[in-house]
Amino acid sequence: MGGMMKAIVKHHRGFGAKLEEVPIPTIKEDEVLIKVKATSICGTDVHIYTWDDWASSRVKPPYVFGHEFAGEVVEVGEKVTNLQLGDSVSAETHLVCETCPQCLTGQYHICKKTQIIGVDTQGCFAEYVAMPAKNVWKNPATMPFHVASIQEPMGNAVHTVLSGDIAGKSVAVIGCGPIGLMAVGVAKAVGASTVVAIDLNDYRLNIAKKMGATHVIHAGNGNPVEEVISLTKGHGIDVVCEMSGHPVAMNQGFKMVTNGGRVSILSLPVKPVQLDVTNDIVFKGITVQGITGRKMFQTWQQVSNLLNSHQIDVTPLITHRLPLDEFEVGFELMLQGKCGKVVLHP
Amino acid sequence: MGGMMKAIVKHHRGFGAKLEEVPIPTIKEDEVLIKVKATSICGTDVHIYTWDDWASSRVKPPYVFGHEFAGEVVEVGEKVTNLQLGDSVSAETHLVCETCPQCLTGQYHICKKTQIIGVDTQGCFAEYVAMPAKNVWKNPATMPFHVASIQEPMGNAVHTVLSGDIAGKSVAVIGCGPIGLMAVGVAKAVGASTVVAIDLNDYRLNIAKKMGATHVIHAGNGNPVEEVISLTKGHGIDVVCEMSGHPVAMNQGFKMVTNGGRVSILSLPVKPVQLDVTNDIVFKGITVQGITGRKMFQTWQQVSNLLNSHQIDVTPLITHRLPLDEFEVGFELMLQGKCGKVVLHP
Amino acid sequence: MGGMMKAIVKHHRGFGAKLEEVPIPTIKEDEVLIKVKATSICGTDVHIYTWDDWASSRVKPPYVFGHEFAGEVVEVGEKVTNLQLGDSVSAETHLVCETCPQCLTGQYHICKKTQIIGVDTQGCFAEYVAMPAKNVWKNPATMPFHVASIQEPMGNAVHTVLSGDIAGKSVAVIGCGPIGLMAVGVAKAVGASTVVAIDLNDYRLNIAKKMGATHVIHAGNGNPVEEVISLTKGHGIDVVCEMSGHPVAMNQGFKMVTNGGRVSILSLPVKPVQLDVTNDIVFKGITVQGITGRKMFQTWQQVSNLLNSHQIDVTPLITHRLPLDEFEVGFELMLQGKCGKVVLHP
Amino acid sequence: MGGMMKAIVKHHRGFGAKLEEVPIPTIKEDEVLIKVKATSICGTDVHIYTWDDWASSRVKPPYVFGHEFAGEVVEVGEKVTNLQLGDSVSAETHLVCETCPQCLTGQYHICKKTQIIGVDTQGCFAEYVAMPAKNVWKNPATMPFHVASIQEPMGNAVHTVLSGDIAGKSVAVIGCGPIGLMAVGVAKAVGASTVVAIDLNDYRLNIAKKMGATHVIHAGNGNPVEEVISLTKGHGIDVVCEMSGHPVAMNQGFKMVTNGGRVSILSLPVKPVQLDVTNDIVFKGITVQGITGRKMFQTWQQVSNLLNSHQIDVTPLITHRLPLDEFEVGFELMLQGKCGKVVLHP
Repeated sequence: MGGMMKAIVKHHRGFGAKLEEVPIPTIKEDEVLIKVKATSICGTDVHIYTWDDWASSRVKPPYVFGHEFAGEVVEVGEKVTNLQLGDSVSAETHLVCETCPQCLTGQYHICKKTQIIGVDTQGCFAEYVAMPAKNVWKNPATMPFHVASIQEPMGNAVHTVLSGDIAGKSVAVIGCGPIGLMAVGVAKAVGASTVVAIDLNDYRLNIAKKMGATHVIHAGNGNPVEEVISLTKGHGIDVVCEMSGHPVAMNQGFKMVTNGGRVSILSLPVKPVQLDVTNDIVFKGITVQGITGRKMFQTWQQVSNLLNSHQIDVTPLITHRLPLDEFEVGFELMLQGKCGKVVLHP
Repeated sequence: MGGMMKAIVKHHRGFGAKLEEVPIPTIKEDEVLIKVKATSICGTDVHIYTWDDWASSRVKPPYVFGHEFAGEVVEVGEKVTNLQLGDSVSAETHLVCETCPQCLTGQYHICKKTQIIGVDTQGCFAEYVAMPAKNVWKNPATMPFHVASIQEPMGNAVHTVLSGDIAGKSVAVIGCGPIGLMAVGVAKAVGASTVVAIDLNDYRLNIAKKMGATHVIHAGNGNPVEEVISLTKGHGIDVVCEMSGHPVAMNQGFKMVTNGGRVSILSLPVKPVQLDVTNDIVFKGITVQGITGRKMFQTWQQVSNLLNSHQIDVTPLITHRLPLDEFEVGFELMLQGKCGKVVLHP
Repeated sequence: MGGMMKAIVKHHRGFGAKLEEVPIPTIKEDEVLIKVKATSICGTDVHIYTWDDWASSRVKPPYVFGHEFAGEVVEVGEKVTNLQLGDSVSAETHLVCETCPQCLTGQYHICKKTQIIGVDTQGCFAEYVAMPAKNVWKNPATMPFHVASIQEPMGNAVHTVLSGDIAGKSVAVIGCGPIGLMAVGVAKAVGASTVVAIDLNDYRLNIAKKMGATHVIHAGNGNPVEEVISLTKGHGIDVVCEMSGHPVAMNQGFKMVTNGGRVSILSLPVKPVQLDVTNDIVFKGITVQGITGRKMFQTWQQVSNLLNSHQIDVTPLITHRLPLDEFEVGFELMLQGKCGKVVLHP
Repeated sequence: MGGMMKAIVKHHRGFGAKLEEVPIPTIKEDEVLIKVKATSICGTDVHIYTWDDWASSRVKPPYVFGHEFAGEVVEVGEKVTNLQLGDSVSAETHLVCETCPQCLTGQYHICKKTQIIGVDTQGCFAEYVAMPAKNVWKNPATMPFHVASIQEPMGNAVHTVLSGDIAGKSVAVIGCGPIGLMAVGVAKAVGASTVVAIDLNDYRLNIAKKMGATHVIHAGNGNPVEEVISLTKGHGIDVVCEMSGHPVAMNQGFKMVTNGGRVSILSLPVKPVQLDVTNDIVFKGITVQGITGRKMFQTWQQVSNLLNSHQIDVTPLITHRLPLDEFEVGFELMLQGKCGKVVLHP
């Protein structure tokens, strides 16, 4: 296509980012060019923006970051057969090798050679983004772009909640950042009978209620374990979705889960965590699931179908929609925790 | 307790039944006596009432029939430890041996020596019923009796729908009798994205809509297979719940299911059915589940939690509530198919 | 590479085939050329050879048929990164679309647009065969070619046996053609406690014993259902692998399976089959699995590991190894059922 | 029956035990009396014998301990219908409540009110033991008593190994005490392609080889993680059975498991363990299973069938068989780790 476009560039090895004019990407024969209509900010983007240790060790400025988006196909590589001009699309952000034992057995989401769009490659905080056709997911024409843009993180929530049985069970979501809030909505949509949201942030607990939480617990007031045991009449909770990454909260999750229950962990604690393996895992006979990424593309299909059928309404958690230019406002909101999901519109 | 009570007695080997005065049952040391507050009519009861071939070969009049109910514990056998006077209860209707290989591995619902309450033993179309404590299921005090009474058949629906993954999938329910209507509601409550109800009865298709069907198909107008293929954009349906028992409808289910899909069969066709095993089962790589009874008591727990959390509202399908005396009206409604679930109140 | 090679050509629309000189295939950028070291005859090849109705409706002579093989990579397309000259390889025979809902969710083996090597494309009954790199499976350097060549059909057996739990269970294999014989060996290798082989062919029942069958039943002598019920002490069999395709035998499988058991069907009955759905599927609460192809590549990994670890020894069922030129002897043996697996060496 | 019998009595709150004459137990109406023919020593018995902190806090001397056994029914309570005089039997050692949510859903092995035979009640280190009929498991008449007596701990091994897929996979057993040795044999018997045994005890690693280990690693020589990564060609191991209880060894297990793998933990570390949740659980997308007890009675059925079919031969790990009187020799062997399983014969 050629020409220039606006993009948010991680321009230096330090705090912040800059809106710059950069060339519109050129595509390879197996790629498509997508006009970005909506792109949402992930916690990972905040790490890059604030330039923490992880970001410093992983990303290589200057480059365009961002990886959650929805848009429209405007150019199609010559070897691409499954996409057409005008298709409404999003994309899986894991670029996988297709040849390791995990990929060969359909477990692409845990490919050992995964690269991540917007982290290891050019991202989507821009007017256009180039994508390998095999990573592109087609959206229904009727799905609004700001909703479609959050399917990637919602995939994490769906992957976590649905990593075991849920219908008719009680669920606790520990940590109500945007993905935690999605998990609350997903649990409710797929038939959980009790959905407990736990966090320290009243603003987000309030959104949790709108997403369908049957109970919210402010972790700073009293003991969440006792509260959960009490509201389940001594039984304990069937399923814990651990999304806080905090060692104390994680241990509370293991204490509140009932015998034979499940603890699915999506969070990434910064240091090793001490767990009472004997009493909280072995004697309880529980299952612990580590969750990363989204099943390609089973999870995308679930997300798309849950959204498209209106089984889940994500409107309450998309709290802010801003023009791309105002990305600094968005990052500031994320840093303060005074938001659900922030969507930027180029 | 002693004394007499009103009961609907299958009094002779022919059509019909009679309201009679019979002795209140006496209980054994491991039983409880329950005052019946609500009891619902099952298709099985209609077979017994009309005295068809199956009934004639199985039941032994005179006896009290009926097996779906809710009530209150009014007397507790001396060896019973898990129930108390005043408990609100229902009961599993399968009496199992506990010693066969199936029972020993927790598959009580397919015990080869199963006896059925109200079929092989005295039933609950009466003011009181005696029940082995191990078959009794405690209801939340807040659950209305007419709702609690239909948990047994709703267990069939839950068992059928949840015999595989369902969240984000498309589901067709073939046959919208009361259990089919429940299956529609269950599928919707546990996150199915598309729920197609298929029947020949407009009255029941109308209730199906109220229970959450996203599409209803009158099987007499046009071709249900083509309609389902079309509404799934050529993909076919992910899950079929076969509840019609009709060979043509059952084959339509096998034709409309997509590759890798599931057909769960609860219905009981009266004769062997010709199936295109090669094209509809093998090449498609599908799973067929035979469903009978309810898992004891995993299914009861799911049913109770889905009802108690209001994830599912069964009000639209409880179309008639009558005094026990008017049981003949209820049976007439069932015979005409002009009802959802009919509940009798002693 | 260029030049000519020997190949078995289905030369006309009638019985038989011809050994001919044909050009060595040229490869595309994403393919490899493989020197065929061993190639085995499948029942499908026999259909093509004898020119039955199915063959007549599907294949388009003249072309090279055959699809089971092992060989060595002798030329590598320029875009191929996961294979090298000299690699010992076999190949999955399903060519899949990668874009349908089944492929997108990792269920490649039930892709609705599957094409089959040697049926819809040029095959491997030849000195060389061209293969898309993505279909090629690398063999351990130590695996003998005649063993490696039968991994494709052994994949069907593994897929069938392992489509549910098997360790410590009783298994009946109905139909002891080569894949049935493999299923016997697989069941034994993965911990089945009882393995019953059923057939009408004493020659093959004899091989079944060598593969590990704990019991063999000649279906023509007495009643297999009664024998199986008796040898399981009235319990019935836990798992049936149906590989006969015969309606009577298939119904016997459904009669002998115990409540809660599994019937996995790999066979392809030529006409619809009458099944007693009510008594044999619903009341028993069994699971029926349709099996086609091999999971790509979970099944290949299982097959390779079972063979390479010597958990299973397939030597007893490879009864004949012939030079490619003597293919007519091989087909004759297959037609007479006087063989296990027949391997041809170009 | 009346009369006196010999029994090993934990006679005081300190080290050791005494052979004493005590009354033969009298049975209740739902119990049977069993003449003990073989009884094996568990690690738990060693804790009681040496009187460690756990024992001191849990058991109440004087009482007869021991819980693994096989014997013959010599007296049958009047309400017992499933057992007869002369039956060869063993018993599940968990006495469960049957009324908690876990029991009601068939998860008896994780009943929160579990009592353990020989710990909380009179045990089987004696000539006779009384058992609730519902805990008794019938053995085939042909199974030798010393083999039948170790089914309870073998159940732990089977439960651990079979808590996920295993056929064609690689397995590491960390900790080769008697149950670890059984796990090696079970993994091999159910089709694992690679079975790595890891311990510090050469005597036991030697038995591991006899049980079918394809590789043994002395954890004191070199780095077990590197060795496992190397022998799996960089892939990592598919399944870890953690039976050491040692925090370093447990962490090695989490390091050696491959992405998407499984770590099943049967061991009971005495203190909380620090785990690298982010890198070893979440990013790897693994499943962690806490394992306790045996599924009642699915696991018993698997154990019995694997033994009875000779799929597994436990002879190499039953290293010592002693008269009951020589129990002190047995305990000494256990304390020194110079044994596999020690069986006592009253």
